[in-house]
Amino acid sequence: MYTTRIGFSQPDSINIYGYDLCSEIIGHASLADLIFLGAQGHKPSENESKMLNALMVGIAEHGFTPSSLATRLTWLGAPEATQAAVAAGLLGAGSVYLGAMEYTAQFLQEALATAPEGRDTSDTAAGILDAYEKSGEKVPGFGHPTHRPRDPRTARFFQLAEEYAVLGENSLLLQAVHAEMERRRGKLITLNGAGAFGAVLSDLGFSWKLVRPVVTAARAVGLVGHIAEEASRGTANSTAQALFSHVEHHTDYRPER
Amino acid sequence: MYTTRIGFSQPDSINIYGYDLCSEIIGHASLADLIFLGAQGHKPSENESKMLNALMVGIAEHGFTPSSLATRLTWLGAPEATQAAVAAGLLGAGSVYLGAMEYTAQFLQEALATAPEGRDTSDTAAGILDAYEKSGEKVPGFGHPTHRPRDPRTARFFQLAEEYAVLGENSLLLQAVHAEMERRRGKLITLNGAGAFGAVLSDLGFSWKLVRPVVTAARAVGLVGHIAEEASRGTANSTAQALFSHVEHHTDYRPER
Amino acid sequence: MYTTRIGFSQPDSINIYGYDLCSEIIGHASLADLIFLGAQGHKPSENESKMLNALMVGIAEHGFTPSSLATRLTWLGAPEATQAAVAAGLLGAGSVYLGAMEYTAQFLQEALATAPEGRDTSDTAAGILDAYEKSGEKVPGFGHPTHRPRDPRTARFFQLAEEYAVLGENSLLLQAVHAEMERRRGKLITLNGAGAFGAVLSDLGFSWKLVRPVVTAARAVGLVGHIAEEASRGTANSTAQALFSHVEHHTDYRPER
Amino acid sequence: MYTTRIGFSQPDSINIYGYDLCSEIIGHASLADLIFLGAQGHKPSENESKMLNALMVGIAEHGFTPSSLATRLTWLGAPEATQAAVAAGLLGAGSVYLGAMEYTAQFLQEALATAPEGRDTSDTAAGILDAYEKSGEKVPGFGHPTHRPRDPRTARFFQLAEEYAVLGENSLLLQAVHAEMERRRGKLITLNGAGAFGAVLSDLGFSWKLVRPVVTAARAVGLVGHIAEEASRGTANSTAQALFSHVEHHTDYRPER
Repeated sequence: MYTTRIGFSQPDSINIYGYDLCSEIIGHASLADLIFLGAQGHKPSENESKMLNALMVGIAEHGFTPSSLATRLTWLGAPEATQAAVAAGLLGAGSVYLGAMEYTAQFLQEALATAPEGRDTSDTAAGILDAYEKSGEKVPGFGHPTHRPRDPRTARFFQLAEEYAVLGENSLLLQAVHAEMERRRGKLITLNGAGAFGAVLSDLGFSWKLVRPVVTAARAVGLVGHIAEEASRGTANSTAQALFSHVEHHTDYRPER
Repeated sequence: MYTTRIGFSQPDSINIYGYDLCSEIIGHASLADLIFLGAQGHKPSENESKMLNALMVGIAEHGFTPSSLATRLTWLGAPEATQAAVAAGLLGAGSVYLGAMEYTAQFLQEALATAPEGRDTSDTAAGILDAYEKSGEKVPGFGHPTHRPRDPRTARFFQLAEEYAVLGENSLLLQAVHAEMERRRGKLITLNGAGAFGAVLSDLGFSWKLVRPVVTAARAVGLVGHIAEEASRGTANSTAQALFSHVEHHTDYRPER
Repeated sequence: MYTTRIGFSQPDSINIYGYDLCSEIIGHASLADLIFLGAQGHKPSENESKMLNALMVGIAEHGFTPSSLATRLTWLGAPEATQAAVAAGLLGAGSVYLGAMEYTAQFLQEALATAPEGRDTSDTAAGILDAYEKSGEKVPGFGHPTHRPRDPRTARFFQLAEEYAVLGENSLLLQAVHAEMERRRGKLITLNGAGAFGAVLSDLGFSWKLVRPVVTAARAVGLVGHIAEEASRGTANSTAQALFSHVEHHTDYRPER
Repeated sequence: MYTTRIGFSQPDSINIYGYDLCSEIIGHASLADLIFLGAQGHKPSENESKMLNALMVGIAEHGFTPSSLATRLTWLGAPEATQAAVAAGLLGAGSVYLGAMEYTAQFLQEALATAPEGRDTSDTAAGILDAYEKSGEKVPGFGHPTHRPRDPRTARFFQLAEEYAVLGENSLLLQAVHAEMERRRGKLITLNGAGAFGAVLSDLGFSWKLVRPVVTAARAVGLVGHIAEEASRGTANSTAQALFSHVEHHTDYRPER
């Protein structure tokens, strides 16, 4: 037998996560609620639902990105298989752009899991910075090529977390790390939106191992708009075609032979 | 220049679809609103938003499916790259299982676009059935292997569409096709949830060309739960491992050589 | 039981397609042979093997294409998951660029399957053109944005097919269609490499339904070089980064709100 | 300008890696040669070409695997988009099953790069084992669930490497690690085919960073056979349908609510 808590269909009903799909989910739950159910097995509170939705909406769309360009270039070759274009845009959700969300959640959750009871948050923050300085690695969640010295999403995520009463120890620890880092370096440093996302998602009870799937689902939502924009123009006038023509006309072929 | 209506970032602000991300979208818009914005360029009304959310939630999760099994089997080989596991589960969103949503939206939209003004809905429905009978093709949106003779989602989608005052000519036409089909065949026939989904999404103003991306995004939301379930068990106790072991022990190798 | 002709492993041996992997395949079969085995269940003759390899090599690599750019943009976000970068580059292998190979194979195979015995090839060709002219659709396999009036691969594929004694009725029919088309239009028209590929692959006994998987495998081979080139430069100096920066600096954001 | 060594098309010629595609590659190079060109920029010797082909053929196909099942399940939903089915089967080429090839190549290449000149191979091997024992991590390339105590591919890969005169320091080091490991543990331990693959590919001059793309391309070749087998049966009689029906009939739904 293959055991699952997720769902099962019968001729006259569909049940997911213990709820009747038609009478208890459709019309009563949001897409964010479904993500919460999938990750944690129970429905979120109203405030948790609002916060998760706000987080996902906040990272779903960034206009042109390597990821949305990959979707558009894939659509150009296979406009009849838009599921493949969406998938292509998700495949780059790896270490470079979206990794910060996962890595921030991971270091916060691991630091809190191993911190001695009653330890002061600022001491834990200093210990985290000491360890990163020793290893020479960059602390995830800090710095941004565009949003300097402040990422506008960061304040907004934390403000909503307070408003929805879900701000917790992960966010407080990240803020303490931020304060200590600026103190040590003596200058303003960006705590980026990805870092704040990872912290607040951790406060909502998500394991860091599920940060990436959540982010991936949010980006799938955003990619619909990119396919819509390309489809409204047609292949000949698409961004993907313009981009490829640009490359074709600016290629410097230098074989090594 | 690459023109887009979707979004752009500046050092201290991010703007998407003409709205300031931090002050007008985060905390004010749902994931379904973002899909609507992406597809149609403007925000939905409150009722349109509720309806779109209800539709997407209604098709996001079906427990074990070929698609969610593909996600799990991919996760088994690459648990560190969950974006790839989500993508793998989306790639089968093609003609067989999810096609009905797109094809129903397409035939409804095309029939309504070409119908002479003032033509009676039941006449248009009869004309559609005549054409399908002549071609020998199956009418999309009808029949279901499990949900017979009624698919519980169908009534729920239409009921909510009425409640939210978004029920429109696409749904009415599909209902008329259903009634005429049952009349001609003299028995109950399932108007399936996929068909109803395609009709109500059409009533919300979505081009049939965007049905598939919308469905793909909804499935991405559902797949998070499948990765969460596998991750909570670990590879050795995962459904994917159990499934693969089952196949390994029940393989009948018959080379043709 | 799950029956397969493909392969099975035992503690001290692995068998694929009826051959012992270690003693009969490794060191004795080429990658092209494996494709042939997979598609047709038996090993190719030496000439068939050479021809299939030549066809696949001929379409594996085209430098910068929408597909290889999608691979590079995906690699930029997830350089640690190169399987995802390869996959992203394959997902656009749909109707627009690579479809011609499949559609040419399909119309040739269907025309030959239904042609009355003994019918003259040029009559069949004329019939095909009549049908396309009537429907108003474009005949697959003809025209090329760059290679005009002759695609250099076309002559090479046919020349090798003759040399390897595998030129068959599919290629002859396509050549007859080409001749008749030029006669009717009174000018040189490109019979493109994709069309010739589809014809010769058909002559090798491949169903048109397998053209796309064969092409996809060939492109996977080509994409290794694109990942290698990006990896040798590092993310900061990669083509993907240069391309994304170009787009970022040439974005004209025009929201509709 | 976007610089590339890979290729460029002109109206009457296509050039890749400094060779004229039609006169120097098609009919003269194998798929393995193209991989070599892509990874290293120059053509392999005849023996290097044979060895690379042997390695890739040796890992291209393993019958039913989680990966080939993901391809089949994807095909079941989208049989018209076989590029997506191939891609789905590649996405699991991550840490668990295929990682050993990459990780073995990596530890060998890194050990050899940092070993003091003139150091004895068995000393380097002992140092590697000491380091792994200290860290508590498993040495990549050893152990196999089925092929015990010997993986038949291992001897075959090394034998061919000797025959083709390409056996080098990476393979010798891996063999020394194997010998030392068996000496320390006092029992036979499987040096698996994945490990031998990684060592010989390293001897051919491939960076460990390109192991995974090479493996991915080889698996794409193998997946053609799985799509061919499913297509020959049709969806209703496919392995994927049988597998899904099995799961449907053996699902134990246990919601947590």
